[in-house]
Amino acid sequence: MTDPLAIAFTAGETGPWRIAACTPVTGTALPAAPRLAVTAAGAAPGGVWTLIGTTSNTRYATRAETDALAARQQGLGRPAATCAALIPIRKSAAWWALAQDERRDIFEARSRHTAIGMDYLPQVARRLHHCRDLGGAYDFLTWFEYASDDAAAFERMVARLRATEEWRYVEAEMDLRLERD
Amino acid sequence: MTDPLAIAFTAGETGPWRIAACTPVTGTALPAAPRLAVTAAGAAPGGVWTLIGTTSNTRYATRAETDALAARQQGLGRPAATCAALIPIRKSAAWWALAQDERRDIFEARSRHTAIGMDYLPQVARRLHHCRDLGGAYDFLTWFEYASDDAAAFERMVARLRATEEWRYVEAEMDLRLERD
Repeated sequence: MTDPLAIAFTAGETGPWRIAACTPVTGTALPAAPRLAVTAAGAAPGGVWTLIGTTSNTRYATRAETDALAARQQGLGRPAATCAALIPIRKSAAWWALAQDERRDIFEARSRHTAIGMDYLPQVARRLHHCRDLGGAYDFLTWFEYASDDAAAFERMVARLRATEEWRYVEAEMDLRLERD
Repeated sequence: MTDPLAIAFTAGETGPWRIAACTPVTGTALPAAPRLAVTAAGAAPGGVWTLIGTTSNTRYATRAETDALAARQQGLGRPAATCAALIPIRKSAAWWALAQDERRDIFEARSRHTAIGMDYLPQVARRLHHCRDLGGAYDFLTWFEYASDDAAAFERMVARLRATEEWRYVEAEMDLRLERD
């Protein structure tokens, strides 16, 4: 565990990722732009919009789950992973008013969030960025990288998560799909 | 549960709180100043230093603990609470590398953090501000208000917490004591 990284996602004219789709799943859309840059927060280029989040400590995963994930997952930046998704999410006030044990029950015991993600490792690499404590329109910026051969599997994972009880508490969600040249 | 509040604590020449003591418990001291202002983050006055944190969701408390706290605690700003303490804390990388269940075990099962705090309700009102995801020198800004008649009880509470296993993970801690005119 290193210190939190503050990461900026900037949509505009620059960056290695071509924005192939920018779809509002729930709530207001983010403006369209041709490309996305992913940088340290202090090095963000100008653009149409920038979202900032920080990697942080885990909030729900147990030691057993953390170790199981670490044993299977691969890092960002794999050469074959030419597809990515940025899915910013905001949860409702009702979610945040729940106590820790209630959120954990919904997140894992009933929605199996970690277990679903495990089914797509190591194909889908991911990194979670927190931004609720930073203010702004979203609570999380979720980032995924995968090979084009695994695009259908990624769609299945996203569909399974959106069908969970946890997702009833999602009140804003954008879905950006990206391709690297 | 309302949205997170971003709160600034500014040491300088202004503010209703006189800084009676400013003691480094662990780590580097914060510079001395005569007074402390507590404001919305966007309304902080100029000063010698400003620390910003946000109220946020609970991270460890169960529903039973949350309800027990809510039944006993009182709000900030009570006229009789002319004493306050601001105790900024940073925990170690080893703490943040623990999984959620490991941190919960140390925090409550072994250190009884919430249970100790309950022993001093409603005399000691408190509010926790998170700042780890904001960057900066501390992870938490803890704020307490109490009447002068309860100052000795407050000292006992702080001493009990500092003697816990949880506190072995505290690598920076300042202790400011304040009095309202």
